[in-house]
This record gives sequence, structure tokens and C-alpha cells, in this order.
Amino acid sequence: MPVLNSLDALIEALKRLPGVGQKSAQRMAYHLLQHDRLAMPRLADALTAAGENIKHCERCHTFSEAPICGVCADVERDARLLCVVETPADQAALERTASYRGYYFVLLGRLSPLDGIGTRQIGAAELLARAAEESVEEVILATSFTAEGEATAHVLAEALKARGIKSTRLARGVPVGSELEYVDLGTIAHALTDRR
Amino acid sequence: MPVLNSLDALIEALKRLPGVGQKSAQRMAYHLLQHDRLAMPRLADALTAAGENIKHCERCHTFSEAPICGVCADVERDARLLCVVETPADQAALERTASYRGYYFVLLGRLSPLDGIGTRQIGAAELLARAAEESVEEVILATSFTAEGEATAHVLAEALKARGIKSTRLARGVPVGSELEYVDLGTIAHALTDRR
Ligand SMILES: [Zn+2]
Ligand SMILES: [Zn+2]
Repeated sequence: MPVLNSLDALIEALKRLPGVGQKSAQRMAYHLLQHDRLAMPRLADALTAAGENIKHCERCHTFSEAPICGVCADVERDARLLCVVETPADQAALERTASYRGYYFVLLGRLSPLDGIGTRQIGAAELLARAAEESVEEVILATSFTAEGEATAHVLAEALKARGIKSTRLARGVPVGSELEYVDLGTIAHALTDRR
Repeated sequence: MPVLNSLDALIEALKRLPGVGQKSAQRMAYHLLQHDRLAMPRLADALTAAGENIKHCERCHTFSEAPICGVCADVERDARLLCVVETPADQAALERTASYRGYYFVLLGRLSPLDGIGTRQIGAAELLARAAEESVEEVILATSFTAEGEATAHVLAEALKARGIKSTRLARGVPVGSELEYVDLGTIAHALTDRR
């Protein structure tokens, strides 16, 4: 049987999306081709633009189209607070709670020695330099409440303590075992307020 | 808060995919940006190529990059059989069973008067002309076993009968591998009626 190359290629490419298996990819491809052709160039353009334009903020490492992201460039924020998160998605979730007005540092990962992710890969030295800036009074460790997230927070807390910098941890209102990105906003807001 | 335009645009575009809501789209976008940048141009290219290359077969209306699809161009198939399905996905599912060797006609829909989909929209006249070709001995109506699919099969069967063309319907019955206890009663009743 002859192969529909473009269709198979589309299904394979859709399978690279997280949570999308063979059946979902087929369903997506057939849906687009039969019912929503206009969505195809739109998604193609959005992917191309995002891939080309979205870099990392030079200061906090979150996703940003400008060299310095909107949060870091905002002089109205509280420079006494520095919140450490694992991913840009976690940072975005915290921003959506509208209950934090300080700055961020995004690790782009968490300590995972077995995967070769050590303090260097998460930018620990840059974080420590940033935390040592005069304005910073408190570093809020908002890594996930998973084993690796807890270990990351512990290692960073010890390093900060050794430098005489105060650190706090999000309150345990956040369900253990869950990733911050998927936690409801109210829970995150309470955990921020109750930080210890 | 400044907006990451490219990121928001990507999330919006991903939400056009069937089964993808705000949370899934965010998760996909962040995953691609942080962990699989190479998948982005690949998916963009696949979407563009599919949108440009995939048309409808002039003979059976399924998706095809050539004017005539691989199945219609295959002279080895059984020209006595013509199978009518609703969508290219249905045709692909039948092909994967490897138990049908005839040709196809894809309606690209099913009768749904309330949505303005009548006999014209599903290409009924073209199907009847195709079914009237000398080689065709049997038209297998393989539309869905939903109310609209059944109505479509009924209308087409009547039109074929009026032209002296034999039509059959896929057997209704208990799905292979399922336990009777868990099959809905309507299906069991049909399986009883259609027993052979
Ligand atoms: Zn920044
Ligand atoms: Zn064809």
C-alpha cells in the first residue's frame, strides 16, 4: 500500500507533544485536515516564531523574548524577595496567583545526580551571586515538593545559610508529590503566605 | 505584566488541536521550549507540508497527495466491492484490518439536516454514479452506528435499491474481546437479530 508521506510525517511530529500517543496524533491530524485547515499554518507559524523568538532572560533564566524579561525589568517589584523555582511554567503559575511581588530565579531543572544534573546545571553559583546582592533579604525556595525538589531546596538552603543569607520554603500547603505547575492557584497563594 | 507574545500565540494555536485545553496547551508549549526545541520546526514543517500536499482523491475523496489515491490506483483490488465510509480516518481503520480488498467512497461527513449537511454535501450523486459502474456488484455501507450514520446508510440504501444496486451494511454485534456482561443491551439485541 502506498504511504501518505505528509500525513504520516504529521502524525509522527504530533506524537512528540507530551501526552499525545499514536491514537491522539491520528485524531489530531485527521481533524485538522478535514475540519480545521486554517489551524495548520497558524500553528506552524506559532511554532516557528516561538522557536526563534523565545530565549532565556539573562537575569532570571525564565523564557523571554527580550534579553531581560518583563518581571526582571519591572523596577516596581520588591527587590528584597527572590523566589527560586524549577521551571518557567512554575514561575508563570506563581505570577498568576498575583500574591508575589518579588523577583525570580529559574533553575531550569532540579538536582538529579543520576541524570547528571548537579549544582552547575541548575545555575547554583549564579543564584548565590544573585542572592548576595545587597537588596535581597530573603530567598524563597519554591522548588517542587518531590524528592528531587526537596533535595534541591535543602542543598540551596545550606549554601545560602553558609553565606549568611536567609531562606524560606513554601509552606507545606502544597500537596506532597505534586508539581507546582499543576497545583491550583489558591493553594499556591496560601503556601506563599505561610512560608516559613 | 508584559506579555510573552510568542508564547501566548503558541498556547492559543495548540488549543485548536482536538482534546487540548488551556492546561494541556501550556504544558505542551513549556515542554517544547524547555525540553524539545527540535520538535518545534519539525512539527511546523510537517503541518506546512501536510496542508500544502494533502488534497482529496478525485475518485474516492479520501486524503491523497496524488490526484488519485493509492487504493484507487491499485488495479489488483476487487472492483466488485465498493465500501462507503464517513471519513478518511474510517477508511484508514478499515485498511488496517487487512480484511477488505475492494474500493472505497468517502462521504466526508454524514447526513445531518440540522447542520445543513444533506445528500449534496456528502456527494451522494457521485457515489450513485460510481456505484452504477459496471464492475460494481455490491456497495457496503460502513457509516457509523450512530443515529446520523444509520440515517445516512438508510437513505443511501434506498437510493441504491431504486437503481437496482445491491447494498449491505456492516454487521452490528458484540465487539471482539469484550465480555457480554459489559456490553450495552442495545448492542446485544442487535447482535441477536443479526446472528448468523
Ligand atoms: Zn528575568
Ligand atoms: Zn481514492
